[in-house]
Amino acid sequence: MMRRCRYADCEMVTKDAIRKLEGIVGAANVLSSEEDRKVYSYDGTSTWVHQPDVVVFPTETAHVEAVLALANEAKIAVTPRGGGTNLSGGSVPIRGGISLVMTRMNKILEISPGNLSARVQAGVVLMDLQKALAAKGLFFPPDPQSFLGATIGGIISENAGGPVCLKYGVTKQYILGIRAVLPTGKAIQFGGITLKNVVGYDLVSLLTGSEGTLAVITEAVLRLMPMPPARKTIIATFDDLPKAGETVSAILDAGTVPAKIELLDNWVIRNINRITGMGLSEGAAAMLMFECDGTDEVVAHDAEKIIGVCRRMGAAGVIVAKDAAEAQAYWKARGAGFAAVFSAAPTVLAEDVTVPRTRMAEFIRRVTDICKAADLEVTVIGHAGDGNLHPSVMTDQNNPGHFARAKRAVDEIIAAAVEFGGVLSGEHGIGLEKQKFMRRTQDPTFIDLMRQIKRIFDPNGILNPGKIWED
Amino acid sequence: MMRRCRYADCEMVTKDAIRKLEGIVGAANVLSSEEDRKVYSYDGTSTWVHQPDVVVFPTETAHVEAVLALANEAKIAVTPRGGGTNLSGGSVPIRGGISLVMTRMNKILEISPGNLSARVQAGVVLMDLQKALAAKGLFFPPDPQSFLGATIGGIISENAGGPVCLKYGVTKQYILGIRAVLPTGKAIQFGGITLKNVVGYDLVSLLTGSEGTLAVITEAVLRLMPMPPARKTIIATFDDLPKAGETVSAILDAGTVPAKIELLDNWVIRNINRITGMGLSEGAAAMLMFECDGTDEVVAHDAEKIIGVCRRMGAAGVIVAKDAAEAQAYWKARGAGFAAVFSAAPTVLAEDVTVPRTRMAEFIRRVTDICKAADLEVTVIGHAGDGNLHPSVMTDQNNPGHFARAKRAVDEIIAAAVEFGGVLSGEHGIGLEKQKFMRRTQDPTFIDLMRQIKRIFDPNGILNPGKIWED
Repeated sequence: MMRRCRYADCEMVTKDAIRKLEGIVGAANVLSSEEDRKVYSYDGTSTWVHQPDVVVFPTETAHVEAVLALANEAKIAVTPRGGGTNLSGGSVPIRGGISLVMTRMNKILEISPGNLSARVQAGVVLMDLQKALAAKGLFFPPDPQSFLGATIGGIISENAGGPVCLKYGVTKQYILGIRAVLPTGKAIQFGGITLKNVVGYDLVSLLTGSEGTLAVITEAVLRLMPMPPARKTIIATFDDLPKAGETVSAILDAGTVPAKIELLDNWVIRNINRITGMGLSEGAAAMLMFECDGTDEVVAHDAEKIIGVCRRMGAAGVIVAKDAAEAQAYWKARGAGFAAVFSAAPTVLAEDVTVPRTRMAEFIRRVTDICKAADLEVTVIGHAGDGNLHPSVMTDQNNPGHFARAKRAVDEIIAAAVEFGGVLSGEHGIGLEKQKFMRRTQDPTFIDLMRQIKRIFDPNGILNPGKIWED
Repeated sequence: MMRRCRYADCEMVTKDAIRKLEGIVGAANVLSSEEDRKVYSYDGTSTWVHQPDVVVFPTETAHVEAVLALANEAKIAVTPRGGGTNLSGGSVPIRGGISLVMTRMNKILEISPGNLSARVQAGVVLMDLQKALAAKGLFFPPDPQSFLGATIGGIISENAGGPVCLKYGVTKQYILGIRAVLPTGKAIQFGGITLKNVVGYDLVSLLTGSEGTLAVITEAVLRLMPMPPARKTIIATFDDLPKAGETVSAILDAGTVPAKIELLDNWVIRNINRITGMGLSEGAAAMLMFECDGTDEVVAHDAEKIIGVCRRMGAAGVIVAKDAAEAQAYWKARGAGFAAVFSAAPTVLAEDVTVPRTRMAEFIRRVTDICKAADLEVTVIGHAGDGNLHPSVMTDQNNPGHFARAKRAVDEIIAAAVEFGGVLSGEHGIGLEKQKFMRRTQDPTFIDLMRQIKRIFDPNGILNPGKIWED
């Protein structure tokens, strides 16, 4: 007998259904104990918790087809999941049902240097892919900071970003083809292996960034780039945070596009030092970290230009990492930035707004003012090169007054980003986190178009229900 | 009184409707004489001819809203049109009604070097945009060879390609935001001005390449790149056509991605000489034309690598253009390639297939064999760097036997491209031209998904009816 879950439109998973799932993927690929289900009730944050009724690991596309056909028939919610490193609730099975974990479909099927492409299963971890590609002198540009655990399927579903998007663009620019299973259980191929493909509507891009609500990706064909032979890291410190922001568009305006431009404010610098003992300059109000890539001559040329612009814009100090080891130490420190933020307060509201780069300085000033007026500690870290900032407000959800104040400040920060011509999420997605902002900032016609598209792909609404615009 | 047009589902434009259209856009922006309508009955080919009942030139987004609201109410077909340079019938008003010509919305609204973006109206001609951008040291990478007349709205609607897509990617990689009017008459903004934007489904990409069937684009925000300071052109000749094809993937495999790799066969070489008097080497079976861009050091480095690979692969001769003037002469000759093809026979069936670059040599051999067996003259020209070839079969549609044989050969060429893992259109789109191949090569579920998406945007089916999958 089916029991209804707390949402009227989805069903609990019965023992009978679990037996059927075991029949499809094998008993070793189904988990249903309390302990096991708990593990799959979170994403990369601890903000939302909801246990699936059962965890299923397909190992081939046919498994995904059969699981979805069963779920669609029985109206069981299915939440696809890769590495679970996402940050806005996308992989949290908020309506129970099946957590469909793709990590056991982790084969790299083909790497073609002559075609600059790779075909991989959805569960391949980005770091594993990069290692295999590096051995052939290639790389896949998108570089979400969760690369140690994030899977290709999740990276596509979230249209992941990262630092190098400044130069190379975001995930959607590197997906040539997707093999996916529709919620009704039918496998389908979108796109292909060629860079040019104008055969009908671009449903590859529609799936990219759809947060697992339209289909379950099982394979993808990726567009690759040759690994640049040289890199150089430059660190510039500033005694004023907005001035660092202004420097970013001055550098682009000067005709140089580094691979990365990362911004760290004084708070982040101090807290990175606390965690890593790196000894970054604590006297600086802000730090910009640049990475140039290309040939030796190109990186030398770009570095010179960046140093010149930083000095002209009034940088307090400019350092060039003396070798690869020193550069790596800086980037490792930068990588610790989010850990520094999240470990600094009982609750951290980390935003993901993106503003036009020409208005970044003004936006940072506004964020600082908003938090000062509300007596809140805030830190700004982010991918300044593409205007994608993560202003993070320190608070404690067990202190209702403080927490309410922090949430109001975040509302104002997001409103400011939109006012400045920006968007409320640059790379983390809407998921569960930003649904209320979605409704506030978006044209209702846009939401209605999405809702109708969702219904075409998923007439029974079983796939990752409760996300993006649904609440 | 409305008269029905030859299709049951659309209406003729009455005199009363024309008066209303004049009321919306002004009488000077409406054409309805026989001569005027004839001008808008073609696209860039002479393959399809159908006159609109009336030609309307909006000069602001509000005009487009009012025209579409009227057309939607009266169920009048509306076919959007930019420069009319497209090659697969997309802008031919095959069901009569309104030809909505966007060329009078041709303002460049903003160029932001600090944000590497531009906001433009849909009717801006690519060449005009490039000139304005060049003055600021910037460029918009997509480079369809119709750049002298193609408009941004058309370039987006067709997801246009061109030679430099090899290095820079296609149009969809450079569209940050679109302002469009839905067929029901509502203007809506998709995307924005930031490179990173994961706020809901990517409807910017859905519109890109939708061939004007989902909405009328009135404005776009484009992602720009700094203009590379240096370029170098290299010409390699081969005494075997497939060998030239093999050389392309050998170059990519060697870790070099030039901006362009163009392929010309002996037929094209001879016919370019005939038109331009350029004096290209007529003894060669094939020619590869490369352009590298970047700093002086980068182009020198890449050129050296390309020359080395060409020699290793057995090129008969390799020349480096001695200066910009000589390079330009070569590219002008290449630009005459299509004119050479289309002027060489009463009817030319020019294909737009794209194959994985690693299989290009094999594909070229197959094309040659197919045409030899059918006793047909064929030439291969194309953007070899991304596997996008335009095998063109010479025929005469007034010679039924020959024409039928030519069409059969084209069927076989397309089937071969698909068999080799390629697609039936790389950059020209489906339009009217490739509908039968669409049905033959695509999963019916894909076509059904498109049909349903179309219905969401355009419930009355008034916008560019009869295209892509409809026949």
